[in-house]
Amino acid sequence: MLMDFTVDGVPGVLWTPAGATGGRPLVLMCHGRSQHKRADPLVRRAARYVERYGWAVAALDAPGHGDRVTTAEATLTAVKLRRRLAEKRKLDPATAAAAAQRAAEAVPEWRAALDHLQGLPVVGDAHPVGYWGVSMGTRIGVPLVAEEPRIVAAVFGLAGLHPGDETLPSAAARVTVPIEFVLQSDDEIVEREAGLALFDRFGSREKSLHLNPGGHLATPSFEAESWERFFARHLSAAG
Amino acid sequence: MLMDFTVDGVPGVLWTPAGATGGRPLVLMCHGRSQHKRADPLVRRAARYVERYGWAVAALDAPGHGDRVTTAEATLTAVKLRRRLAEKRKLDPATAAAAAQRAAEAVPEWRAALDHLQGLPVVGDAHPVGYWGVSMGTRIGVPLVAEEPRIVAAVFGLAGLHPGDETLPSAAARVTVPIEFVLQSDDEIVEREAGLALFDRFGSREKSLHLNPGGHLATPSFEAESWERFFARHLSAAG
Repeated sequence: MLMDFTVDGVPGVLWTPAGATGGRPLVLMCHGRSQHKRADPLVRRAARYVERYGWAVAALDAPGHGDRVTTAEATLTAVKLRRRLAEKRKLDPATAAAAAQRAAEAVPEWRAALDHLQGLPVVGDAHPVGYWGVSMGTRIGVPLVAEEPRIVAAVFGLAGLHPGDETLPSAAARVTVPIEFVLQSDDEIVEREAGLALFDRFGSREKSLHLNPGGHLATPSFEAESWERFFARHLSAAG
Repeated sequence: MLMDFTVDGVPGVLWTPAGATGGRPLVLMCHGRSQHKRADPLVRRAARYVERYGWAVAALDAPGHGDRVTTAEATLTAVKLRRRLAEKRKLDPATAAAAAQRAAEAVPEWRAALDHLQGLPVVGDAHPVGYWGVSMGTRIGVPLVAEEPRIVAAVFGLAGLHPGDETLPSAAARVTVPIEFVLQSDDEIVEREAGLALFDRFGSREKSLHLNPGGHLATPSFEAESWERFFARHLSAAG
């Protein structure tokens, strides 16, 4: 079942199993740059998690994305990202600083949304919460997971440490929950060394980096299976 | 069921499901330095693969290991390895050259054993073959998988490119089957950069490196689960 919601003006969507009653583990999913809360991969993954595990899954439109911008603005963002990928331009300091600013804005939005969601009987506050977000979803998720004790496990990746972004390293150091981090050897916008440097900064005792060949948009499908098992290990056992 | 065998003087062991008849996928497992064909982790993994998937699993004593040396010689090897780990001495050129020599000796032994095993009705030659071996098992496995077209998928890791070993890079380049490669960030004897350099050399289109914190002997247990799924993906589908 799919339910739209809005918290403090931020639009979100919640997926739950048909006919579900009572609390359950929740997975927060943050889309990537130029995407929105109902991007295809999120919808597919939400359906899978809901049907197979009975979890709830929630997504928000990030600042400057989805229903928070006009179609023309969203298209411009997508065009710019495609151009950056095609030209293999790594993140420059101005872009990295803007991403940090966007994350600072998004973190309280996610925390408010989590308050709201845990107030719903179909989610509740007695079960573990996971976070999934790669690329921009990692830039937003790292400070969120660092600050939010309700999140017990996170999937990150396709992101790294870049000049211009002053706050990501310290946020990563404050993340102590288990993480799985995906990285692409031939990422057009994230140098492998920058990704490894971010991975090294995480304070988590359990942290596992999965490195595959290919570009930013070519994460192999078996990684999605691995994310699923990662969440099953950390959400279902405790749930 | 467990069956000891010897091919050209090399002792091996074959695990198969109780009462099994007819051919099945086969996983070859090569133990690490100072271990032997019935080292605890191999026995546990073999039992799991046999019971859960119905595969056959085979292990050999590597040159200079197991029943091919005296107890005193085996103890000396184990003491030397423990000392190297405790002193965090990376592989020196002489040790790397000796490992290359050992691998050159082991490859034809494995190929002869595979001929023998595929001649048994309970294995046969109509099903895919996988290879598992980390550390010394990778040094032996890389040239084996490079030369042996019957092996369709391999788990490697805890190994890297080192001065003194002239043949490993080109062997890795000739490996084209899917691989999963495990690496430890704090490995006492393999620098992370050496491991990444080896990973980069593999010719495989599907290759996935899993990097975790901890030392040479501290690979997390969830990696064993991942190996299992990797083999299930590549052996059972085709089998």
